Amino acid sequence: MGEKIGFIGLGNMGHEMANNLLQSGYDLTVYNRTASKAKSLVEKGAQLVQQPAGAATPGGIIVSMVANDQVLEEIVSSQGFLAHLEPGGIHLSMSTVSPLTARELARLHEQHHSSYVAAPVFGRPDAAAARKLWICLAGPPAAKERVQPLLQAMGQGTFDFGTDPGAANIVKLCGNFLMISSMEAMAEALTLAEKSGLDRSTVVDMLTHTIFATPSYQNYGQMIAQKRHMPAGFRQSLGLKDVNLVREVAEHTSTPMPFASVLHDRMLAGIARGRGDMDWSALSLNVLEEAGLELPHSE
Amino acid sequence: MGEKIGFIGLGNMGHEMANNLLQSGYDLTVYNRTASKAKSLVEKGAQLVQQPAGAATPGGIIVSMVANDQVLEEIVSSQGFLAHLEPGGIHLSMSTVSPLTARELARLHEQHHSSYVAAPVFGRPDAAAARKLWICLAGPPAAKERVQPLLQAMGQGTFDFGTDPGAANIVKLCGNFLMISSMEAMAEALTLAEKSGLDRSTVVDMLTHTIFATPSYQNYGQMIAQKRHMPAGFRQSLGLKDVNLVREVAEHTSTPMPFASVLHDRMLAGIARGRGDMDWSALSLNVLEEAGLELPHSE
Amino acid sequence: MGEKIGFIGLGNMGHEMANNLLQSGYDLTVYNRTASKAKSLVEKGAQLVQQPAGAATPGGIIVSMVANDQVLEEIVSSQGFLAHLEPGGIHLSMSTVSPLTARELARLHEQHHSSYVAAPVFGRPDAAAARKLWICLAGPPAAKERVQPLLQAMGQGTFDFGTDPGAANIVKLCGNFLMISSMEAMAEALTLAEKSGLDRSTVVDMLTHTIFATPSYQNYGQMIAQKRHMPAGFRQSLGLKDVNLVREVAEHTSTPMPFASVLHDRMLAGIARGRGDMDWSALSLNVLEEAGLELPHSE
Amino acid sequence: MGEKIGFIGLGNMGHEMANNLLQSGYDLTVYNRTASKAKSLVEKGAQLVQQPAGAATPGGIIVSMVANDQVLEEIVSSQGFLAHLEPGGIHLSMSTVSPLTARELARLHEQHHSSYVAAPVFGRPDAAAARKLWICLAGPPAAKERVQPLLQAMGQGTFDFGTDPGAANIVKLCGNFLMISSMEAMAEALTLAEKSGLDRSTVVDMLTHTIFATPSYQNYGQMIAQKRHMPAGFRQSLGLKDVNLVREVAEHTSTPMPFASVLHDRMLAGIARGRGDMDWSALSLNVLEEAGLELPHSE
Repeated sequence: MGEKIGFIGLGNMGHEMANNLLQSGYDLTVYNRTASKAKSLVEKGAQLVQQPAGAATPGGIIVSMVANDQVLEEIVSSQGFLAHLEPGGIHLSMSTVSPLTARELARLHEQHHSSYVAAPVFGRPDAAAARKLWICLAGPPAAKERVQPLLQAMGQGTFDFGTDPGAANIVKLCGNFLMISSMEAMAEALTLAEKSGLDRSTVVDMLTHTIFATPSYQNYGQMIAQKRHMPAGFRQSLGLKDVNLVREVAEHTSTPMPFASVLHDRMLAGIARGRGDMDWSALSLNVLEEAGLELPHSE
Repeated sequence: MGEKIGFIGLGNMGHEMANNLLQSGYDLTVYNRTASKAKSLVEKGAQLVQQPAGAATPGGIIVSMVANDQVLEEIVSSQGFLAHLEPGGIHLSMSTVSPLTARELARLHEQHHSSYVAAPVFGRPDAAAARKLWICLAGPPAAKERVQPLLQAMGQGTFDFGTDPGAANIVKLCGNFLMISSMEAMAEALTLAEKSGLDRSTVVDMLTHTIFATPSYQNYGQMIAQKRHMPAGFRQSLGLKDVNLVREVAEHTSTPMPFASVLHDRMLAGIARGRGDMDWSALSLNVLEEAGLELPHSE
Repeated sequence: MGEKIGFIGLGNMGHEMANNLLQSGYDLTVYNRTASKAKSLVEKGAQLVQQPAGAATPGGIIVSMVANDQVLEEIVSSQGFLAHLEPGGIHLSMSTVSPLTARELARLHEQHHSSYVAAPVFGRPDAAAARKLWICLAGPPAAKERVQPLLQAMGQGTFDFGTDPGAANIVKLCGNFLMISSMEAMAEALTLAEKSGLDRSTVVDMLTHTIFATPSYQNYGQMIAQKRHMPAGFRQSLGLKDVNLVREVAEHTSTPMPFASVLHDRMLAGIARGRGDMDWSALSLNVLEEAGLELPHSE
Repeated sequence: MGEKIGFIGLGNMGHEMANNLLQSGYDLTVYNRTASKAKSLVEKGAQLVQQPAGAATPGGIIVSMVANDQVLEEIVSSQGFLAHLEPGGIHLSMSTVSPLTARELARLHEQHHSSYVAAPVFGRPDAAAARKLWICLAGPPAAKERVQPLLQAMGQGTFDFGTDPGAANIVKLCGNFLMISSMEAMAEALTLAEKSGLDRSTVVDMLTHTIFATPSYQNYGQMIAQKRHMPAGFRQSLGLKDVNLVREVAEHTSTPMPFASVLHDRMLAGIARGRGDMDWSALSLNVLEEAGLELPHSE
């Protein structure tokens, strides 16, 4: 029988990750704001608790996968588990949050004699289900060592970026920034092609099976070519949140990033036009509008 | 013994492509402004001529791979082979030029009872040498059919974009635009990472072996991470030329492209600071400068 | 009885300028593509000719005020007056054209033993009518001296930028660039104010009667505040032409200009959405659209 | 003998404003973090106190002119005068702060039965000394009425933007945004002119005495033309702060502002290169650098 692990945050991603831990034999205690989402996990043996603090045990490991910085701060400190984890416990924090938040939380854990391990991930829910996440890791060496088996149960590879707890989150933000940059570039290129009389799908098919033969270019390329941005894999409002995290670090480090500025203005225009709940690739619709093209009827 | 083919333009790319045609048994007549570059091809059996027109035979095929629109127009019309190709000849034009130029030249060939086949390629000189080019094709159906064997001798795959002679060039420009966009995005991301205390190579290694596992991201990513932009695989001045071709089509079709504007301003700043002969990935050096970082000594 | 002067180009601006020369006692020979526009001038004593060349006399002065570079080149060379002006004649060229065109035409005049004086102007038709134009001057000293009385009959002040014929046009382009920049800035600011619940006109009234108390800010500010961009004082398609002239010089001199890039993309989006014939201040409508605001019904 | 007034914040601006109130006969109690700056005011009869709270009297008026939002919040609440102003007192808040901060503070005052009147100003220290400030006003009608005599003692004109306490600050931010936009536009234009062989000062002289004949264009135009940005009238780091306040409102209201993005990136690059303490017009130096021009030796 496995080690007892707390797991907080059962959204699209977290649910799959928790399920994999359960399948790998861990004894799971779970918490989610909307308790009903824990149902299938409970049926498989997980124990549901009513407060974040209930998921923690002194010296144990607690995994979190929540929506944003504010929720993360809440489950840790204000109404949180921080006092219940010490001494010697580990918080394996897998959400995409600000590096500044990660550093602040790491300090807080240290004051409470526990460890904060940052481990944000790349991959969508299907990758999470298939234990195919890519994991960025940062934190105290001993704690990182101890969580290895959990990481292996959730991902296909882990990359260690040292002891600065903010480092893993910066890499995660860099990756998201590259992804949304590639979408804007494809949106502009395909609009140019369409206005030149070419078929969007034919163009993107070629480019994403030759010089850009990766799933990310292929998947988002097809969505952008076909102007289909519902249902959302990752909402544009969350995409803007991530671009704003990038800009926050840019401000903090005095790093001018003109692509980030264009992306910000683009996604903000999408929000202004009511597209916050569409997939973040829907930034492409504003490219179409600026070029004077009709949007698909469903938008 | 093979068909007689004319080949004009023996730069880094053209030389390898001509060599492959020769190896495949074609009877090659070559022309290059700097005749000395034909030496090794002549040794292998190619015939060298002193004028572009000398490479053409009535009803034959002539392949061109030259530096820019102006040179292409010169070898065709002002001092060129146009009158020597008719009737029924084919000009297989593989350079990266403006779609507007391609359309204009196609009209000109039609008036002279020959065919213009646009076939710009993706791939650097090593890919050309290995017959691994990706080819974008557009032009009259019969002519495209007739040049198939030549394309197979030079590339690993051909994608047909119909009869508009400008279409193939638009796809080529879209591809180059995606590539230089990915470089700017990596340059901004790695500068953000460096100013946050991370190691550039470690970051790019992870990202280009997980979510962006393509040679283009890997190769340019390493150059940008290591701040090495010499020797140039493709010069920044040529990169700016291609961005300007993109902008020309954008203007012609009323397609606003803010990423193209950022890239233009970025590369123009590189030219202004004397970096036109460095690799086009050297746009990254201006990202470093804006962030107040020191450039490597060699720059 | 005054000196005999040729005048080519009787658009909104040229008509008023020619009229002032006539009122000042000059003996005017006029040419316009649409001859009917010369009617009221002919009634006041001007002589109408059917070809540009007819407006020129050897050693005389010819004034031109035409729509763009291409028309200017046509009236001078291909079908033009160049051969009829020599020896010793002067072409007082008052249109807004590229500095590169100005330099090229100056060379051409020199070869034909006449002088090209560049004298583009600031001011709208009402300022032209009131002899209130501001004039940028460049060219050969003796020729500049000789045209002084004409300039005084058309403007309220002349600024001499030396002998480079392109210099006056660069100053003119700089001025237009400042004007359209101020419009984009006002459009963004007033949209921010509107979305914050403020009244656009009240805000612009204050700002343009305190820190920006100039007619240009006041007039364009009111148009932008009230979302009224018809009838066009200066069409957006011409505004884009001028921004493109700025960008041409920027390219030629390796000067990155990010504001010019934003303005280009903004006005191109206006053209793409069918607003080329509205006033150039209509770039503001695209700012509104991006912010998700409704456009006025008349647009 | 005049009404008793508290005044907090004796920087370059506040000192002159306080002095004018004193000259107009008000009985002034002053507070400043660095008490020595109150010296000359005390010599003229002002009373110096050691805490912000000491400047407040129940039902009285307190004027504040401080550096940023954080300081304003501190003097009001955490260590502040809020509890000492009620009932019926007025806080006349003249600093440039976020409209969100203004709204929050207005709520806080209301809870404490006092009034928050927002009254940010346009003008530099010399304008403050000459009672020539332009004042943006917003707040509860009765309170605005009561502070009229004070406003007349400090400015040359007041513009009322209603009861939303954030409104006055939005207008102030719009004005600063227009000013810094005009500086970027001039910097780009003059660099284009310089690279074309023209003299920067001659160009700016013409433009700012004809189509842009306002002190703001003239003063900043000369600084930019002559590349003189020390001593700072308003530091670039504060300019960036204001642009960031603009962007905060833009985010809050979903208003894409591409000029604000360019300005942000430009000024952040200036900070990155160590120019935060130069005048905000020093954003021009980064325009020069991007164009490959040498900076003046003193930079």
